[in-house]
Amino acid sequence: MSDQATAEIRRIIDSPAFKAACATLRAEHDRTVQDIVALTQIAAPSFQEGNRAAAWRDMARGHGLHELETDAEGNVMGLRRGVGNGPLICIAAHLDTVFPPGIDLTVRRDGTRLLAPGIGDDTRSLAVLLAWLRAMDAAGIRTRADILVVADVGEEGPGDLRGMRYLFEKGRYQDRISGFITVDSPNMERIVTRGVGSKRYRVTFKGPGGHSYGAFGLVNPMYAMADAISQLGQVQVPARPKTTFSASVTGGGTSINSIPNAVWTEFDLRSESPEELDRLERCFLAIVDKAVAAENHARSTRTGEISADIAKIGDRPAGHTDEAHEMVRLAQAALLAHGFAPTFEASSTDANIPMSLGIPAIKIGSGGSGGRGHSLEEWIDVEPEASLRGMAAGLATLLAVAGVAE
Amino acid sequence: MSDQATAEIRRIIDSPAFKAACATLRAEHDRTVQDIVALTQIAAPSFQEGNRAAAWRDMARGHGLHELETDAEGNVMGLRRGVGNGPLICIAAHLDTVFPPGIDLTVRRDGTRLLAPGIGDDTRSLAVLLAWLRAMDAAGIRTRADILVVADVGEEGPGDLRGMRYLFEKGRYQDRISGFITVDSPNMERIVTRGVGSKRYRVTFKGPGGHSYGAFGLVNPMYAMADAISQLGQVQVPARPKTTFSASVTGGGTSINSIPNAVWTEFDLRSESPEELDRLERCFLAIVDKAVAAENHARSTRTGEISADIAKIGDRPAGHTDEAHEMVRLAQAALLAHGFAPTFEASSTDANIPMSLGIPAIKIGSGGSGGRGHSLEEWIDVEPEASLRGMAAGLATLLAVAGVAE
Repeated sequence: MSDQATAEIRRIIDSPAFKAACATLRAEHDRTVQDIVALTQIAAPSFQEGNRAAAWRDMARGHGLHELETDAEGNVMGLRRGVGNGPLICIAAHLDTVFPPGIDLTVRRDGTRLLAPGIGDDTRSLAVLLAWLRAMDAAGIRTRADILVVADVGEEGPGDLRGMRYLFEKGRYQDRISGFITVDSPNMERIVTRGVGSKRYRVTFKGPGGHSYGAFGLVNPMYAMADAISQLGQVQVPARPKTTFSASVTGGGTSINSIPNAVWTEFDLRSESPEELDRLERCFLAIVDKAVAAENHARSTRTGEISADIAKIGDRPAGHTDEAHEMVRLAQAALLAHGFAPTFEASSTDANIPMSLGIPAIKIGSGGSGGRGHSLEEWIDVEPEASLRGMAAGLATLLAVAGVAE
Repeated sequence: MSDQATAEIRRIIDSPAFKAACATLRAEHDRTVQDIVALTQIAAPSFQEGNRAAAWRDMARGHGLHELETDAEGNVMGLRRGVGNGPLICIAAHLDTVFPPGIDLTVRRDGTRLLAPGIGDDTRSLAVLLAWLRAMDAAGIRTRADILVVADVGEEGPGDLRGMRYLFEKGRYQDRISGFITVDSPNMERIVTRGVGSKRYRVTFKGPGGHSYGAFGLVNPMYAMADAISQLGQVQVPARPKTTFSASVTGGGTSINSIPNAVWTEFDLRSESPEELDRLERCFLAIVDKAVAAENHARSTRTGEISADIAKIGDRPAGHTDEAHEMVRLAQAALLAHGFAPTFEASSTDANIPMSLGIPAIKIGSGGSGGRGHSLEEWIDVEPEASLRGMAAGLATLLAVAGVAE
């Protein structure tokens, strides 16, 4: 721990202004919950974030943001000006969810527990960004840095971090951002300092197809695909550095009485370690080749062979922020000061992009608790005390990183 | 061979009326090809046969059919009256194809070869039924039996023979049909006398789902499904009685970065033998159970277990028509007289339903050649000599079964 970071956080949270800001967070907690519910119920699959983006932009009006705008990629953002001549710190939450169109997004309540797909990852954070802005405004807090507040697109799966790529590679602030904080999911204790890299593939297994009865005995791409999935399921990966795989989405086939022409599966490979990720990728590609060859050996190829079209559909860079960096120390001190026991974690988040560019970046939480992210049973708890404690710690982090002007 | 059947066929094909009918088939062959092309290009997935049914009904006008009508199931039919007080023979071709909506159905030509999904199975037959009607009319042929001409729905996969079930169980002619001929696909030499039984399943593998990285290690229904497909692919089935299986259509999953909640596959099991079909079905169900148990053993079930919802989505009765039956003998004699080498085969066709009810039924061909049925490369050859030879043999069969009035 850095004494300097601890002292800076102590100075901020003991200030009357910060206490006033926290009082506003408390007074407006119901409004924050209403915002979470409203935003959660607007579908926002990756690449279809437009409705939710427009709703958030409407909500963000009157929050003291200059130049509230939507960039060419779909990110909504606005600048909370600092006192001038300071750096630019970006704080972001992502608009998109993993859930396809048509999923029931109605928020169910069970006491202080709210259940709905995407509610914690990352919709709660979108509302928390606005709560922080109102709290700072109500308390008259000015920062040394300009704060760029972003509701971004394309964080999840197929989005492949497109919102962040645009922001850091083409956006109007691309050269000015000197620090980045993404607020992603409720858990406060896991500070993400390492960006998990990923490689994603859509593999289409093709064959001649034919009548399920009349052409029985011909190669069937379903067996090649099943073999590849089964073999991947048996791969041993290290627990540290954490390395994972998933056969996630599948489809294909002509009709129940046809040997299919084509079937496909999407695969997700990840690791904290670029070397382990490369090793897993090579293993996976060899499994696909072997499964194709095995099916061509197992059944007749007289009307054609099985082949695999291997399309890389995602490639997220790994990266990290040194745990000794001031930004990390400040976040850690803010959490400790609020009674949390922070740990440093690896994950794939919007922070991967700035990390990979050498820009200090971390992920923090939106407060309260939650679980079952990416499942239909996703939930958060909005019990006020736990929620406000997390939101206070997050706000203290932001203020410490941006610097409070005297 | 039955001398009686041979003599009857000889009598028919030597008659001036039959020769006149064949001359009409030849004169109108181009029209028949045009009808094949027009009908092929109207999509007709099972349960969505309406557009093609309406087009066939329009084409069938002016073909001497009384009471041209569409029944409650969607079958289009009309009666060609015989001389009176005779039996009722039904001749049918099916409207539906295995191809889902949106497939390109444009007919491609390569010399006398026409390529398009569904063109041979069974669109050609729909046009041939009309050609036979015109030929009989032009030749002034009257039959002892009434002939019910049907373009029926639901022969393929999910249709589960719904058109035939309606016709024989609820239709207005249900108690009158004493013989049934289905015209299905070009090949003339394979007379189907045995109805292959089938059992069809849609199995949905379910699990708790979760984040592909954060929840790595949880059970994944994709691995259970892949294991079941792989195991089915290794089942040994007898070549005689022919017994087959296919993993045909698949789907499911939430997003590439989620362990799926649910994935599914549709399976087709068939056999000429009810006993072998039962054995294969038991083996398949055991494989599914074992695959589910294996995945629950292989990975963590702390947020829930894998389960399988097993839905039977098709169950076609087996049946057969004795090869000594007069209908079979007449078809065989008609084919021999036209230079074909007929064989008796087993298949799953519209004839399964009457066969299972004890009504004499066979499948014959529509003439010419064709192949790659149920694949996107399906083709037929409409070279006139081969086509007309087949159509003549089919017409002779129909006339012999219905009886030509003097």
